Amino acid sequence: MNGRLNVAVIGAGYWGPNLARNLRASRECNLAAICDLDIDRARRVADAVGGAPVTADLQSVLADPLIDAVAVATPARTHHAIVMAALDAGKHVMVEKPLADTQERGAEMVRRAAERGLVLMADHTYCYTPAVLKMRDLVASGELGDILFVDSVRINLGLIQPDVDVFWDLAPHDLSIMDFVLPGGLQATSVSAHGSDPLNTGKSCIGYLAMPLECGAMAHVHVNWLSPTKIRRMVIGGTRRTLVWDDLNPQQRLSVYDRGVDIAAVSKATAPDRRAANISYRLGDTWAPALEEREALSAVVSEFAASVREKRASRTSGAAGLRVLSVLDAAAGSLAAFGAPHPLAQPRRTEAEVAA
Amino acid sequence: MNGRLNVAVIGAGYWGPNLARNLRASRECNLAAICDLDIDRARRVADAVGGAPVTADLQSVLADPLIDAVAVATPARTHHAIVMAALDAGKHVMVEKPLADTQERGAEMVRRAAERGLVLMADHTYCYTPAVLKMRDLVASGELGDILFVDSVRINLGLIQPDVDVFWDLAPHDLSIMDFVLPGGLQATSVSAHGSDPLNTGKSCIGYLAMPLECGAMAHVHVNWLSPTKIRRMVIGGTRRTLVWDDLNPQQRLSVYDRGVDIAAVSKATAPDRRAANISYRLGDTWAPALEEREALSAVVSEFAASVREKRASRTSGAAGLRVLSVLDAAAGSLAAFGAPHPLAQPRRTEAEVAA
Amino acid sequence: MNGRLNVAVIGAGYWGPNLARNLRASRECNLAAICDLDIDRARRVADAVGGAPVTADLQSVLADPLIDAVAVATPARTHHAIVMAALDAGKHVMVEKPLADTQERGAEMVRRAAERGLVLMADHTYCYTPAVLKMRDLVASGELGDILFVDSVRINLGLIQPDVDVFWDLAPHDLSIMDFVLPGGLQATSVSAHGSDPLNTGKSCIGYLAMPLECGAMAHVHVNWLSPTKIRRMVIGGTRRTLVWDDLNPQQRLSVYDRGVDIAAVSKATAPDRRAANISYRLGDTWAPALEEREALSAVVSEFAASVREKRASRTSGAAGLRVLSVLDAAAGSLAAFGAPHPLAQPRRTEAEVAA
Amino acid sequence: MNGRLNVAVIGAGYWGPNLARNLRASRECNLAAICDLDIDRARRVADAVGGAPVTADLQSVLADPLIDAVAVATPARTHHAIVMAALDAGKHVMVEKPLADTQERGAEMVRRAAERGLVLMADHTYCYTPAVLKMRDLVASGELGDILFVDSVRINLGLIQPDVDVFWDLAPHDLSIMDFVLPGGLQATSVSAHGSDPLNTGKSCIGYLAMPLECGAMAHVHVNWLSPTKIRRMVIGGTRRTLVWDDLNPQQRLSVYDRGVDIAAVSKATAPDRRAANISYRLGDTWAPALEEREALSAVVSEFAASVREKRASRTSGAAGLRVLSVLDAAAGSLAAFGAPHPLAQPRRTEAEVAA
Repeated sequence: MNGRLNVAVIGAGYWGPNLARNLRASRECNLAAICDLDIDRARRVADAVGGAPVTADLQSVLADPLIDAVAVATPARTHHAIVMAALDAGKHVMVEKPLADTQERGAEMVRRAAERGLVLMADHTYCYTPAVLKMRDLVASGELGDILFVDSVRINLGLIQPDVDVFWDLAPHDLSIMDFVLPGGLQATSVSAHGSDPLNTGKSCIGYLAMPLECGAMAHVHVNWLSPTKIRRMVIGGTRRTLVWDDLNPQQRLSVYDRGVDIAAVSKATAPDRRAANISYRLGDTWAPALEEREALSAVVSEFAASVREKRASRTSGAAGLRVLSVLDAAAGSLAAFGAPHPLAQPRRTEAEVAA
Repeated sequence: MNGRLNVAVIGAGYWGPNLARNLRASRECNLAAICDLDIDRARRVADAVGGAPVTADLQSVLADPLIDAVAVATPARTHHAIVMAALDAGKHVMVEKPLADTQERGAEMVRRAAERGLVLMADHTYCYTPAVLKMRDLVASGELGDILFVDSVRINLGLIQPDVDVFWDLAPHDLSIMDFVLPGGLQATSVSAHGSDPLNTGKSCIGYLAMPLECGAMAHVHVNWLSPTKIRRMVIGGTRRTLVWDDLNPQQRLSVYDRGVDIAAVSKATAPDRRAANISYRLGDTWAPALEEREALSAVVSEFAASVREKRASRTSGAAGLRVLSVLDAAAGSLAAFGAPHPLAQPRRTEAEVAA
Repeated sequence: MNGRLNVAVIGAGYWGPNLARNLRASRECNLAAICDLDIDRARRVADAVGGAPVTADLQSVLADPLIDAVAVATPARTHHAIVMAALDAGKHVMVEKPLADTQERGAEMVRRAAERGLVLMADHTYCYTPAVLKMRDLVASGELGDILFVDSVRINLGLIQPDVDVFWDLAPHDLSIMDFVLPGGLQATSVSAHGSDPLNTGKSCIGYLAMPLECGAMAHVHVNWLSPTKIRRMVIGGTRRTLVWDDLNPQQRLSVYDRGVDIAAVSKATAPDRRAANISYRLGDTWAPALEEREALSAVVSEFAASVREKRASRTSGAAGLRVLSVLDAAAGSLAAFGAPHPLAQPRRTEAEVAA
Repeated sequence: MNGRLNVAVIGAGYWGPNLARNLRASRECNLAAICDLDIDRARRVADAVGGAPVTADLQSVLADPLIDAVAVATPARTHHAIVMAALDAGKHVMVEKPLADTQERGAEMVRRAAERGLVLMADHTYCYTPAVLKMRDLVASGELGDILFVDSVRINLGLIQPDVDVFWDLAPHDLSIMDFVLPGGLQATSVSAHGSDPLNTGKSCIGYLAMPLECGAMAHVHVNWLSPTKIRRMVIGGTRRTLVWDDLNPQQRLSVYDRGVDIAAVSKATAPDRRAANISYRLGDTWAPALEEREALSAVVSEFAASVREKRASRTSGAAGLRVLSVLDAAAGSLAAFGAPHPLAQPRRTEAEVAA
């Protein structure tokens, strides 16, 4: 051992190769093994990164005392079993989104990690892109003022997934970003979900989520597998500035607009009618901060290593993954009630999270 | 009289001057008078079009036997009284959107016009733009196949209206276009409305409408007064093609995408599991039909004259305006129920409409 | 007379109605007459602005002692005769671009105005748009640093003019803007013009101008009547910042990029080889200044009135118009020499101009 | 040996790894060796593709009878020596653009390959992108009609190269594409080059090329290392249609516009004045053909293998590379003459090329 974190990748499908490549390139981690039931697949991934031990046997990975941690990139329905076993074996864990396939299972994973004093990190990759990190900074610094609304659109002609609907496939991106960027995390008070399955595939292919937030703002997500054009765009409106993130415009991903509506504070005594409030419009400059071009997953790997080393919660901890699950669960409840709002009691950010 | 339709403009505020200008330029109409309580305002509008009789007295207009019709461009809350009086005076009527300020009043107007055998036309101006006319043709001809979804976004930094919320201000555009373009009109089975008033203005400044349609498709509208950027974009997804209307891209307002998901028809016997259905993806060409650049309001005026002359319903008749009102009313009901879906029984297109 | 400048519009074709409308709306001018050989055309323009005296007789306009000035919007080949007559009659003159149809005639007009102590203003309308005024300010304030290059593209499917080629039709816009924005005016040392007439219309329909400037920068213009898409874009590169003006993007017409190449100053002694110079790259923020939406021609009219009142050169004086003509004349010389560079000795900005 | 073409990669710098990766993935080629003076660099490239023989000794590669061909990705100034040696050793050769650092050396390479009966292919990678292949098809099929003009812009904040100017660095892309797409190849009759070095780097950082073509059309190229924004756009105007290739718009890279100017054919007898010709405008539909997303370099490798197997010229043969060099050489001549047009006698496409 060389002071680096020894990490095994579990799952060599779509995302595993990216994890393996970034672990291999990391100075803080050591790619200790690649594990997949399909040993040939594991071997191909190992070859592509210049070689690494491979195995089809998860137990041998968990039993290996030289392995400190696992990065799990298997289908969501298998997360709970694998992660619980890994935690019980004393391994730190990073899990691909979504954290689990139900809120209940996710909650159990978070509790177990806490009991064992182990790091459980959600691999919310987008949160580590230069654009989203900048968004978080802008919100935290008060640059936008109070948040008024968040609107996210993520649509594309997408692969219809065999086992999950469009909410579970795409919305975790939007929800985890909102959770990361908003000062108190994603504190929805209810969720109204509207889904549509016009091709009769057995699951929603088009989805809308409306979520009043505790702070009084409205959050909304539109996800869609049937759009012929691709849009990945989030707007965060604030009292002072409004931010637009257009992820498909590499020349100007982030724009901060000093444009908006100002309502002069008027005392109730002098102006009992809110309509009399003095409304004015700002039409100020636009500013597009420079962003480095950097692969987010390398920052994910760094954060995982740092949170283990510093014995602290990750910036996208299991608790964050759990808040995403609770929204998805509430959305399923709303869908079952034909779109009626489903109440939600989001746990506040933990002290450990705030400190991260 | 010269065979032209003699039309008086009622209301010389924001929209009246446009009506006056187009009536003046029309070969089928004659601008017979401009009527406004503020006679100076009426006079300014008359001057700008090279002169026309002006009056502040609506009764004198309605009493004038040489006047065949009125075009009403007053605030929505006054539509009912003015239109009922005009119909009772035997005048054909064209009304600015929305038709009335409640569905009930709108219904009364529609009934009265029918009883009197007079034309009642909704001035749904957007429906007469070359882009929307083309959209209607494409849908009607089966070019898109069956409709799967309709998604409309109309956001901008907009004037916060003193008397109406963002739904009543902006959504009539989207709803009237959907009603015009969809084969059976806008046949929503329920409406879920999510509004937000983060600036505490006393009314929704951000709004979302989710509307399952009778045909099985989902319609959705996003209207917003607080967006720093301007978007006017409607997507109509079909089984064969998907259409995107981007009204702010004059170089390519309309794009028809031969891209989508194909699901092979599989009999229940051989494939009881819908998931086993054979899914494939089309990634075909895009086609952008040429559109003339023409002012929609001149076509509105022509249609009004033609429907009077031919004693037929207008292409955007009172019944169409009424369907828009019924959605807005249902939206208000949903808003009052914190976003719960509000059921809706839309009347079918009348025979007179279908013939138009 | 009411202290306003009494201005007659000469020419009621394409541009004259705009002049008439803005003169009528101005507080500093009085629309004194509209003169056109086609008296009916003059009358239609007068009607559209609420009435004005009309005449087909230029001499009567020039003889009228109550008329202080004329705004000339006739074909370019008639400018010289009309303007000389107006100056000789003691009238101040504003002329549509181009100032004249040859440099020689333009020079005579400029001399005559100077001799008579009258204002001769070039109606370089673009220079009075909020975007171009801002560009001038940014350059003047040193925000961009030293100017390195100017590249302008103005292409569209355009009307093929009967009497002028694409250089004379479109390039005056680009050249007058460059002249207005660059600190010393457009000081080209030579012009290379490359034209093409692939449809055999008898004149260039596609044109390129390359102009080394005295300051060491390169200016380039691309004008084209045969492009199916429309582009109006000017880039001004500086040592500190680079500015992009995209006139067809109303949401962000002007962008100022803090991006570029920095070359460390190295003394010749220590680094005789320029290749050894220390090159680094800046990838800073982008900034899009807010611009009002305002009609440029009203500012043109104001400037005309102000320069007469203050007895000073206009910001776009006859001398500016003359510099544009001298480039167009040199371009014609280069075209005749199959693109060989045609030398040019641009007069410096006059003191009167600098003071404007 | 397994029937595949055994290819050694010469040069493991910027482009070599891409060649190695695509040769390794090819079914028609075998990656036989990687050769670089810096053996460590060669080894790293070999590792990244799963291993391959490496050497620092070019002679041993050329002497190896099992090696059929070499792919050269070394600096341009070394191409001539390496390629001549390879041809003399009986190897087929593919060379990164530009073919050589002067036209004369390139011509010698082409002659030698012909004498030896070996394939000499220019790796004009862009020509094998789906977009450019489609462009070639559209032109060849007559879809565009006769070509009227070609305008290419390739600008970006680019690395200032130590040994070549912006013409030699970037224009080979535009020129090789034009040569590939135009029916007779790039048949310029002269070249006017305008360069600018405003930062005093010792070479042009901004460049313009104007090239009248034999067919009567005008070709123009704008290359620029100092632009803060990135544009890669080529327009090919024809009498029937005009094509726009916007390589940075993945959603619609290629647009074919049925827009343009039509000039009715008029006999000289009836209309001696060309101005009297009957001009009309087409404003038809736009069509964006679907394009696969595929790596061009894999098609390059296939074409190399196919041309060797079929003993024929490559679609981008040495002769094509030579035509690019002749334009660059002429451009250097024009630059030295301050932009005066430099005449050029382009050899016609060879029969072997036409057959390819």
